[in-house]
Amino acid sequence: MLEFFFNPSSVAVVGATPKEGKVGRVILENFKNKFKGEIYPVNPHYQEILGLKAYASVQEIPGRVDLVVIATPARTVPGVLEDAGVKGVKGAIIISGGFRETGTQEGAMLEDEVKRVAAKHGIRVIGPNCIGVLDNWSGVDTFFLPEDKMKRPPKGYVSVISQSGAFASALLDWMAHHGYGLSKAISFGNKIDVDEVELLNYLVEDPTTNVIFLYLEGVREGRGRDFIDTARKVSRVKPVVVYKAGKTKRGGIAAASHTAALAGDYTLYTTVFKQSRLLEAVSFDEIMDLVKVLSTQPLMKGRRVYIVTDAGGVGVMLTDAIELNGLEVPETPADLKERLRSVLPPHCIVENPIDLTGDTDDQRFMTVLNELLPRNDVDAVVVVALPQVPGLRGELFEYLVTAKRYGKPMLVVLIGGGLTLEYKKFLEENGIPVFESPERLARALSALYTYSRIRMQGGVS
Amino acid sequence: MLEFFFNPSSVAVVGATPKEGKVGRVILENFKNKFKGEIYPVNPHYQEILGLKAYASVQEIPGRVDLVVIATPARTVPGVLEDAGVKGVKGAIIISGGFRETGTQEGAMLEDEVKRVAAKHGIRVIGPNCIGVLDNWSGVDTFFLPEDKMKRPPKGYVSVISQSGAFASALLDWMAHHGYGLSKAISFGNKIDVDEVELLNYLVEDPTTNVIFLYLEGVREGRGRDFIDTARKVSRVKPVVVYKAGKTKRGGIAAASHTAALAGDYTLYTTVFKQSRLLEAVSFDEIMDLVKVLSTQPLMKGRRVYIVTDAGGVGVMLTDAIELNGLEVPETPADLKERLRSVLPPHCIVENPIDLTGDTDDQRFMTVLNELLPRNDVDAVVVVALPQVPGLRGELFEYLVTAKRYGKPMLVVLIGGGLTLEYKKFLEENGIPVFESPERLARALSALYTYSRIRMQGGVS
Repeated sequence: MLEFFFNPSSVAVVGATPKEGKVGRVILENFKNKFKGEIYPVNPHYQEILGLKAYASVQEIPGRVDLVVIATPARTVPGVLEDAGVKGVKGAIIISGGFRETGTQEGAMLEDEVKRVAAKHGIRVIGPNCIGVLDNWSGVDTFFLPEDKMKRPPKGYVSVISQSGAFASALLDWMAHHGYGLSKAISFGNKIDVDEVELLNYLVEDPTTNVIFLYLEGVREGRGRDFIDTARKVSRVKPVVVYKAGKTKRGGIAAASHTAALAGDYTLYTTVFKQSRLLEAVSFDEIMDLVKVLSTQPLMKGRRVYIVTDAGGVGVMLTDAIELNGLEVPETPADLKERLRSVLPPHCIVENPIDLTGDTDDQRFMTVLNELLPRNDVDAVVVVALPQVPGLRGELFEYLVTAKRYGKPMLVVLIGGGLTLEYKKFLEENGIPVFESPERLARALSALYTYSRIRMQGGVS
Repeated sequence: MLEFFFNPSSVAVVGATPKEGKVGRVILENFKNKFKGEIYPVNPHYQEILGLKAYASVQEIPGRVDLVVIATPARTVPGVLEDAGVKGVKGAIIISGGFRETGTQEGAMLEDEVKRVAAKHGIRVIGPNCIGVLDNWSGVDTFFLPEDKMKRPPKGYVSVISQSGAFASALLDWMAHHGYGLSKAISFGNKIDVDEVELLNYLVEDPTTNVIFLYLEGVREGRGRDFIDTARKVSRVKPVVVYKAGKTKRGGIAAASHTAALAGDYTLYTTVFKQSRLLEAVSFDEIMDLVKVLSTQPLMKGRRVYIVTDAGGVGVMLTDAIELNGLEVPETPADLKERLRSVLPPHCIVENPIDLTGDTDDQRFMTVLNELLPRNDVDAVVVVALPQVPGLRGELFEYLVTAKRYGKPMLVVLIGGGLTLEYKKFLEENGIPVFESPERLARALSALYTYSRIRMQGGVS
């Protein structure tokens, strides 16, 4: 029911302008470059903008208008909305700032007026004080940062909901750099109408969204129950990773200045996240680590993790990290030990972590993985293949791609520069997540296990 | 007193060979390319190797030999050592594996024999089963991985002690990729003689070492007291970052297979680290984050951190992370608030975090920093300058380099690709650490504060 924000057949850009560097110009350009529907620039001072016929007001547009994007000064916004309401517009993305977030009475009153007008006409609103919507599949893009400032990620299946616009922009630029695919990003700023609850409800049905990431400062008062119910429903279908900003007293005060959010008690939020079966990321790194593993790996049937390594030390680090995150690095079962002893040189260690030592080659890894992957008592495999080891030539990495057919989570540790980064790129392009940090890998794998339980056992309490 | 390992005037490489890809060849090449002293290849099958006159044994070498590097099969090592002993060699780096780490009785007996011979002649030993020493200042380099497998970091002031050779190699390759300078790296494998205690004692006096990183699986039995005393002594002069592998029961078992280390009880180790005033890194990321901040930033006089941001959301994330790590994001004092209000546009937030909002330019940041940096009630400044914001042109980053004259810790948050990475490179080359993750920045800053207290108040209890 929010479809007109993401797939409108026509869009009016109010505040469109030909002036270089202006928000109204960047947004119009975005639509012109990518959006396939009708585009109507609105600005009374121009007949034409960037080769498109311009209109003095939304009402003057001849055809139907599904969505208005508003980038004019705050005081003009109620009038623009009124105009859009008469025209029968369904949705408005209000980019303009200058409302409640200013902390002034005038800003608060203007925001209330915007709410009133929108309600009167039944217009749904994203914003104000936001950067709006980027949909990589339809070409809707109100993110008013030009490509040279913020690269857009490639088309993909991760959707991002963020109360912070600047954080969303930086995250998307970062995703683009690392090659993570994006479906939709929504930043709703002051959130006077459409909020995370409705967006979750929308994204659960979205066929191009497999994983959802939510940056949250606070849920609106009275909206807690809906949030929990919706999140539980969505989590049964797709993993939702959440990051809560405003965890501390001082952070909560900062959140209040930022988006007028009621950050609330963090302990309460962590409880809510557990009840809602959301996967909480507690750091910037964890956000993308969790998304990376959850969006590429099959579910994990149990908690037994096997490690195959060419670096004993990293095997130890991983064992610690995996065990500390509630998973198991079990002893190698007797029959498997015997098998491995028969195929490996005597100086290799067949206990889990299975240490192939620094004189390994690709084949030795493949031999062991061929034993491990088909077994029912192996729930996930972590391969530590530090390519500094002289015998590794890259064949292993091609093998891993074919080994996806076993349907088991497989994660890889690579540390280094140069060659390492090439292998990493190859693996990640083929859906095998690569980590430098054993600890980050372990946390992400643990989240995969938690999510697998949510899905397979109908949830954890 | 370990000077001959790092600055020998002459080196014999036993097991040197012209055969491509062999350990004895890589090591000889390393010395030939970088080491300024005398180099004697030892191998009875050759008259000459890589253009250097070869000798059948160490005894046959005409001149004095300070250091032997041994890369021959385990069973030959006692004989080589005996030979070196007669020659009056001071130190031996035994690269060869096949000793106690194999878990066999034969390996253990060979190792005991090596110990006996070394003791008889008073030869100090690094190893066996190790990759030895890399000294970027003298050109000693027994790391037997060729440059195409493991890049060497540039010359610098960080020294690394690592029980794990593969981890050290990967870490150095990673440092090279990220441009971190290295002074010395030592990996001692089975550690039958020279251990972390002696190396710490050596490095505290080393003029090219400013920060020490120690990867530890376990301290030898009976060596705990020495470890604590030495670490305390060193920490009064230089920061020591430690990472303990083998934290869990399963991890401890893996450590025992790896380097025959007695991983011990982790709770005990954390206590020991605190007593020793070491800075514990609990993840791979933290290792380099702590090193990066400790090796570049001045001491921190108190715990009051000010944040200047162009992204409200990241300001909130940072506030949380800094407060959760035991530092303070205090309220902006009244006089400063007044000053800031007089120089900033009204929509900016003068409360700490100081939010310049998305329409900021470089000048606005510089105006605020000029107010903050000279103040006595500001102990560190974090600048969040997400360059996706349209008004940032890079002038701020040049300003930050000049602002180092204020002698205050300054850290920067940048998130994104492309342009962001260029700015990051510029700042880090100029000694200003850059982070993507607010949480990682906060942990590293907190370690700087802990270390500052160690230095300024004679330690924390």
